Amino acid sequence: MTGTVPPSVDPAELRDVMDGRWASVRRDARENLDDPDFLPVYGETMQEARERVTRAATTLAGSGRVGFGFPKEFGGEADSGASVTSVEMLAFVDLSLMVKAGVQWGLFGGALELLGTSRHHERYLRDVMSFDLPGCFAMTETGHGSDVQQLRTTCTYDPATETFDLHTPHQAARKDYIGNAAKDGRMAVVFAQLITRGTNHGVHAWLVPIRNDDGTPCAGVTIGDDGPKAGLPGVDNGRLSFDHVSVPRAMLLDRYGQVAADGTYTSSIANETRRFFTMLGTLVRGRVSVGGAASSATKLALDIAVRYGDVRRQFAAPGEDREIVVNDYLVHQRKLLPALAKTYALHFAQGHLVETMHDVQTAVHVHGQEVDEDAQRELESRAAALKVAQTAHATATIQMCREACGGAGYLQENRLPHLKADTDVFTTFEGDNTVLLQLVAKGLLTGYRDTFGSLDGWGRVGFVADMVRETVLERTAARALIARLVDAVPGRDDEVPMLDRGWQLKMFEFREKHCLEGAIRRLRNNSATEGMAPFDVFNDVQDHVLKTAQTHIDRVVLEAFVAAVDRTEDPAARALLDRVCDLYALSTIEADKAWFLEHTQLTASRAKLLTATVNQLLRELRPHAVTLVDGFAIPPSWKAARILEEEPGRQEAMAARDAELRARNGQATPDGTATALEVPPAQ
Amino acid sequence: MTGTVPPSVDPAELRDVMDGRWASVRRDARENLDDPDFLPVYGETMQEARERVTRAATTLAGSGRVGFGFPKEFGGEADSGASVTSVEMLAFVDLSLMVKAGVQWGLFGGALELLGTSRHHERYLRDVMSFDLPGCFAMTETGHGSDVQQLRTTCTYDPATETFDLHTPHQAARKDYIGNAAKDGRMAVVFAQLITRGTNHGVHAWLVPIRNDDGTPCAGVTIGDDGPKAGLPGVDNGRLSFDHVSVPRAMLLDRYGQVAADGTYTSSIANETRRFFTMLGTLVRGRVSVGGAASSATKLALDIAVRYGDVRRQFAAPGEDREIVVNDYLVHQRKLLPALAKTYALHFAQGHLVETMHDVQTAVHVHGQEVDEDAQRELESRAAALKVAQTAHATATIQMCREACGGAGYLQENRLPHLKADTDVFTTFEGDNTVLLQLVAKGLLTGYRDTFGSLDGWGRVGFVADMVRETVLERTAARALIARLVDAVPGRDDEVPMLDRGWQLKMFEFREKHCLEGAIRRLRNNSATEGMAPFDVFNDVQDHVLKTAQTHIDRVVLEAFVAAVDRTEDPAARALLDRVCDLYALSTIEADKAWFLEHTQLTASRAKLLTATVNQLLRELRPHAVTLVDGFAIPPSWKAARILEEEPGRQEAMAARDAELRARNGQATPDGTATALEVPPAQ
Repeated sequence: MTGTVPPSVDPAELRDVMDGRWASVRRDARENLDDPDFLPVYGETMQEARERVTRAATTLAGSGRVGFGFPKEFGGEADSGASVTSVEMLAFVDLSLMVKAGVQWGLFGGALELLGTSRHHERYLRDVMSFDLPGCFAMTETGHGSDVQQLRTTCTYDPATETFDLHTPHQAARKDYIGNAAKDGRMAVVFAQLITRGTNHGVHAWLVPIRNDDGTPCAGVTIGDDGPKAGLPGVDNGRLSFDHVSVPRAMLLDRYGQVAADGTYTSSIANETRRFFTMLGTLVRGRVSVGGAASSATKLALDIAVRYGDVRRQFAAPGEDREIVVNDYLVHQRKLLPALAKTYALHFAQGHLVETMHDVQTAVHVHGQEVDEDAQRELESRAAALKVAQTAHATATIQMCREACGGAGYLQENRLPHLKADTDVFTTFEGDNTVLLQLVAKGLLTGYRDTFGSLDGWGRVGFVADMVRETVLERTAARALIARLVDAVPGRDDEVPMLDRGWQLKMFEFREKHCLEGAIRRLRNNSATEGMAPFDVFNDVQDHVLKTAQTHIDRVVLEAFVAAVDRTEDPAARALLDRVCDLYALSTIEADKAWFLEHTQLTASRAKLLTATVNQLLRELRPHAVTLVDGFAIPPSWKAARILEEEPGRQEAMAARDAELRARNGQATPDGTATALEVPPAQ
Repeated sequence: MTGTVPPSVDPAELRDVMDGRWASVRRDARENLDDPDFLPVYGETMQEARERVTRAATTLAGSGRVGFGFPKEFGGEADSGASVTSVEMLAFVDLSLMVKAGVQWGLFGGALELLGTSRHHERYLRDVMSFDLPGCFAMTETGHGSDVQQLRTTCTYDPATETFDLHTPHQAARKDYIGNAAKDGRMAVVFAQLITRGTNHGVHAWLVPIRNDDGTPCAGVTIGDDGPKAGLPGVDNGRLSFDHVSVPRAMLLDRYGQVAADGTYTSSIANETRRFFTMLGTLVRGRVSVGGAASSATKLALDIAVRYGDVRRQFAAPGEDREIVVNDYLVHQRKLLPALAKTYALHFAQGHLVETMHDVQTAVHVHGQEVDEDAQRELESRAAALKVAQTAHATATIQMCREACGGAGYLQENRLPHLKADTDVFTTFEGDNTVLLQLVAKGLLTGYRDTFGSLDGWGRVGFVADMVRETVLERTAARALIARLVDAVPGRDDEVPMLDRGWQLKMFEFREKHCLEGAIRRLRNNSATEGMAPFDVFNDVQDHVLKTAQTHIDRVVLEAFVAAVDRTEDPAARALLDRVCDLYALSTIEADKAWFLEHTQLTASRAKLLTATVNQLLRELRPHAVTLVDGFAIPPSWKAARILEEEPGRQEAMAARDAELRARNGQATPDGTATALEVPPAQ
């Protein structure tokens, strides 16, 4: 849309567009986050990693960078967006430290702040912030990960002693995968079924001491160690079981539900399910942080792979006195560049999400306004959507980058193994991605109006059909701009140039609406089918429903990217981002080409043109690949990848190799270029 | 084709079909491969892992199970197929041990045997087999992984001293990622450019001592350590550099090229490139072994994920007093079952490959027949193809299984992290998969007739167009059976039932032929384009060329599966395998649905029917999921996964949970089923 890309684009301009509203937090981190304990140490044992990361967390607490999210009266900044941005930056440095910090100040501290009341804040919050009180967020049980409303741990009130009895009824009910539990945690926010006067009021949270001052477990508490994991060696995940542990009444985090001395239960929210999800909803920041951290790791992996591919030679060019660097191969470009484009797209979508989250949370927690339920549900759905997109993209992209670096990518000294192993759990923690996709789908299907509807309600979805168009179109960034672009699409769809942004947007919108309408129709038909079990009504179309969520995510992300291009002022940077946006849009359509063909949005010849257009974009963007990773502005000292270090004599060695090649080509040697299509075993 | 699947199928029948020609080797391993050092130890340090695996390799040598591939006069069995089968079995136990064994007896021992002559055999082979002489296969250089014909290490003959001078000219020429180098290796087979009388005769191999008896490096040899890797902690990969190391003339492995005392070079193969690839071709067993080992790891991962998914409960079924196990979800089935089907398909393709390899190698190395060049090239291409298919499938499937097991899948105690990390390098070692795909494509494009043609030759591909049909159709397992099935397809393609095996085969064949013809046409057009650089002639269509190779692999695999179903005698097992074969065929077509739509092999309505048919197959196969992993016949003692252990009181706990659920549903609690579409944060 904005013309050709000039040969040279200033990466600082890209960085400035990407830095966005919390640019100062990013700058501060780049300049000052440099403690030697912060970087991963390759080959350290699990014990060494845990000790280093505990030290690093203490250092981090002392730096004042953990308080962004906490209330000002406790020395925080009450700046939710800064808090998430800070986690994103920490994720570049060491993911164990990022997760440890997330557990301490996000989950444990966040629950204490948001589910507790002033007496909890006054007594504990300063020690939480200083890391003098390391804590856990003990929700997940071995037998219940995703369905936490069905947790089996019970906490039963006894008016005679004015205490709760916290109990783990069987092994599947033990708390599992709990960060900070195996080594450091002194207290835990424990989630359990609140039972008083013989009635279960659903899941609530208590602040429970788990270790004595000497480090031994408190009476009745059994602490286990999850032991070594695929990654995150510095995070001490463990297991907690409670054998009738006595918990004082005051330790109930009672913002949303209170138990009087005599055992009377009160709450401002009558419906138990609604209350529970309101409590959970306050903790949305954790999910936003995990998505952002996944993107940081993805950027670093791409930074390494793109730079390596720009100097790594593989085969000699036929008939030429040079070897080709791997970034020059079309298939290598097909691996790296669409992933790079999607990383930019997700960055801008994350930026938009963080702004939304900040505004919603600031209204409630800083300005004391009433919760806007629609806005809150919308935020939770968007957070789930982007967590899924960013973590799935991280898993796929970091894997691809590892492979793109060959044997070098398999060595820990080149960072990629740590990035892969550490982020691997992101797709299944803070909400399993498949389950989160269902959450997103539910939001779409009900338009947030039937917020707490049951699964049975899927059988009664007829009424939502009318809102499909409205709900799909009302929720987006930069609506006016998008509408203008879509309306400007000239002529018939199958004649429009593929680089027309309006056409791209139309394709994304059409697919989402069509999927959603189809899902609703199929659910309605199933529910009208006699004898079909309620589970099967839904399960029969689960793949369709999840695809609908995925198409929604794709559109939200594209719209965020379009808005970002629009606000880019530097003409060169804008032209480049515009092309990158084209690549994101067209490679996303290409990846789901079957759907567009099946639904007559692409003819066969246009489908072939699509592939050719993507290849053309790759050729155009290839010279800018390094500029695009420069735009991530990752400080070299954070990368800790040996292959990025200029080896002494490297240039001389390259020159020597070229000279040898010339000599060999000049000799009466056999045709060396045959090797471009041959390959030996390698070990 | 063979009717409905009975409710119960005996997994022993599946096992017997899968065990194939080397069933006795598999049985022996299952019964006797049980040394405590063989299993991975979770949380061990790299040093501990290396020491354990060295011990285990010694134990393995003592067991007599490493000699299958060696000549009978040295105590081996001259049984190439048994050798690969034995590696496949070892891969279930510990992949570090499998790779260590592969380096010692496959690469090092194999090169010594196949590139050396009797004086090398007599002097060293017994010590190699007993592990008294640990050795390395030093081919790959830091700067040259894939293009080993361009290795920079030189070995220059001096008639005055009758020695070679082995030299590493610069750092990019050091040998890298070399197994056995960092700790154990005493000698190495080193690949270098052979120069004598001022002429470079291309890459040859020498047997070179690298460590003295006291473990110190030999004079002039610098040994480095690659340090910790993503996985394979028990393999001591390292780096070797040579500073003008003197190597006696007799240490040249001289089966394919000899240097006389006066420096005269002789060889039975005049063309240097052809000689080099003949030498490499003898080492094809390594690539076949890696593919087979990848499949073993895949089977184990699926075994764990399928069994876990059969007991893991997630949400309550709406309106029912039970929780659904995750294997009951359509989307979970969509993850596990097509991967399971493809694993069966690849198993049978690997079985066919191993038989072919065995027959080709036995003819030459045991019966002393002339090399059948066509058969050898065909074998190398097939080995490359299946290595790509099996290792890519392993990477994707083990990742999926990890995620399917949620947090439990992230704990080392549940084995999946080791399987993922250890196999990760398989896609890029023993030939990078992208480069191997090019090798496969070259075979298809030239019909093996222009075996050593250069890349420039791509411009002269016109002559091969005529052979496309012939070469595509002539190379396959069970040709007569396949032809009969294809010929029997009734009526028009768009009316044939999708479970018709002939139709499935036709679709695979059509796609391969069409891709191949298109690639040839585009290459021809490019080469006729004036001013197009030779590199661009090829690079412009690289994606198309690699896709062609992929479609070829898919067909070869399907045909092997079809042949295996055909030879299954037990009717129940046959009916089940037939359905699994349908799922492999249709999910493969579904994954590339865009292509079939674009090329009018599927109408839009048939494309939708395809998805519905795959879903129907999933429903049919779901009750047999555990039977299908039982068919892999992996001994429980090899699995080393805590989640597969029956926990004490598990059944009681499940019953208790169901009772609680009933009680809650009976209570006046809110609608708990809403949670099926909600999800909390989890940490």
